[in-house]
Amino acid sequence: MSDKETRHKERQEKLKQAVDTKIANAQTVKGLMIVITGNGKGKSTSGFGTVARGVGHGLKCAVAQFIKGNWECGERALLEKNGVEFHVMGTGFTWNTQDRIADTEAALAIWEKCEQMLQDESLDLVLLDELTYMITYDYVPLERVLTALRNRPFMQSVVVTGRAAHRELTEMADTVSEVRNVKHAFDSGVKALKGVDW
Amino acid sequence: MSDKETRHKERQEKLKQAVDTKIANAQTVKGLMIVITGNGKGKSTSGFGTVARGVGHGLKCAVAQFIKGNWECGERALLEKNGVEFHVMGTGFTWNTQDRIADTEAALAIWEKCEQMLQDESLDLVLLDELTYMITYDYVPLERVLTALRNRPFMQSVVVTGRAAHRELTEMADTVSEVRNVKHAFDSGVKALKGVDW
Repeated sequence: MSDKETRHKERQEKLKQAVDTKIANAQTVKGLMIVITGNGKGKSTSGFGTVARGVGHGLKCAVAQFIKGNWECGERALLEKNGVEFHVMGTGFTWNTQDRIADTEAALAIWEKCEQMLQDESLDLVLLDELTYMITYDYVPLERVLTALRNRPFMQSVVVTGRAAHRELTEMADTVSEVRNVKHAFDSGVKALKGVDW
Repeated sequence: MSDKETRHKERQEKLKQAVDTKIANAQTVKGLMIVITGNGKGKSTSGFGTVARGVGHGLKCAVAQFIKGNWECGERALLEKNGVEFHVMGTGFTWNTQDRIADTEAALAIWEKCEQMLQDESLDLVLLDELTYMITYDYVPLERVLTALRNRPFMQSVVVTGRAAHRELTEMADTVSEVRNVKHAFDSGVKALKGVDW
C-alpha cells in the first residue's frame, strides 16, 4: 500500500471511530421536530423531500401549505397520488392579497386542520410548509402553535419550513438547519422554471 | 380600515412592486444548475424534493447517488416507482470502506453513467447527490465534472448536493444555497429515524 493509501485508511479509521461512538450514543427514539429556516432556496423543497422519503418507507404523511396560492404544484401532484393528505391555505402571497384580515381568517382555518393533524396518532409525519410567516405576521398566535407542537403524539415527526423561524420554534426543535442564500438564478434575470422552481 | 390594516396594505404594496419588477426582469429561460452545500441537514432531501416536484410536473428525471450504501432508501422507492432512473455508487461511506482505490473505481464507474445522463437531451432534470465529495477526495477529476456540466443540453437542469462544494462548481451554478447546521438531533443522542432521517 502506498503512503497516500495508508494515510487515507488511517484518516478514515479515525473518522469511523468518531461516527461509531456517536451512533452508539444515539439511543433516544422519538418523533423529531425539524425546522428548516433561512433566506435561501431549498427549504420547502427539503420539507417535501422528507415527505417523499417518508411515503417511500410507507409512513402516513400529511402536509399543510401556508401562503402559497392554488397554482399547479408538482410535489402535490405526486404526493397526493401516493396517499398524502394536503391542506392548502390558497390565498397566495401576502404581497398579492394585501389584506391582513382575510389572510388571518384563512390562516386560522388551515391552522385548525393542523391542530387536528398534530393530535392524530395515525400520522407519522406532518409538514407545516411556510408556517413561520404565520407567526411573523401574527396570523396565528405563537402560543397556540407551540402548544399543539408540544402535545403531539410522541412518535410523530414534524417539519416546519419558512424564513425567520421564531426563536421559540428553533429552541423546541430537535434539528434546525438554516438555508443561506449564496446566489439565486432569479436575481440574475433567470425565469422560474416549471418542475424545478415550482 | 384601521391604522394597522392600512400599514400592512402599504407595506405589502411596496413588496409587490419589488417582486413584480424582479419577475418582469427575469426573462432568461434555460436549464438551471443548482448547488446545495453546507454542513446542515437537508441537502440531499432538498435534491430529492426537487426531483419529486419535477416528476409531479411530468419531467423526465434521473438520479446518481454517490457515497451512500445499498440500504433501503425511502425516496428511491417512491421515485423509481414513478419512473425516475437511479444509479447508486453503493460502496457506503468512506469511513466504512477505508479503501481509496476501490472507492475511486466505483466513483468513476458511476460518473460515466452521469456523463451519459448529462448528454441525454431527453432528461429534464438530473440530481447528482453527494457529488461534491468525489471532487474533494479526488475520486473524479474536477475538470471532467466541469466539462460535462458545461456541455449539458441547454434546457437540462442539474442539482448537485454535498458538503464543501468546490469553488468552481459554485461559480458555474445559477443558484447556490448553503445549508448551515444550527443543531442536529443526532448530536443530542437521538437515533436516526426511518422515513425521516433516511
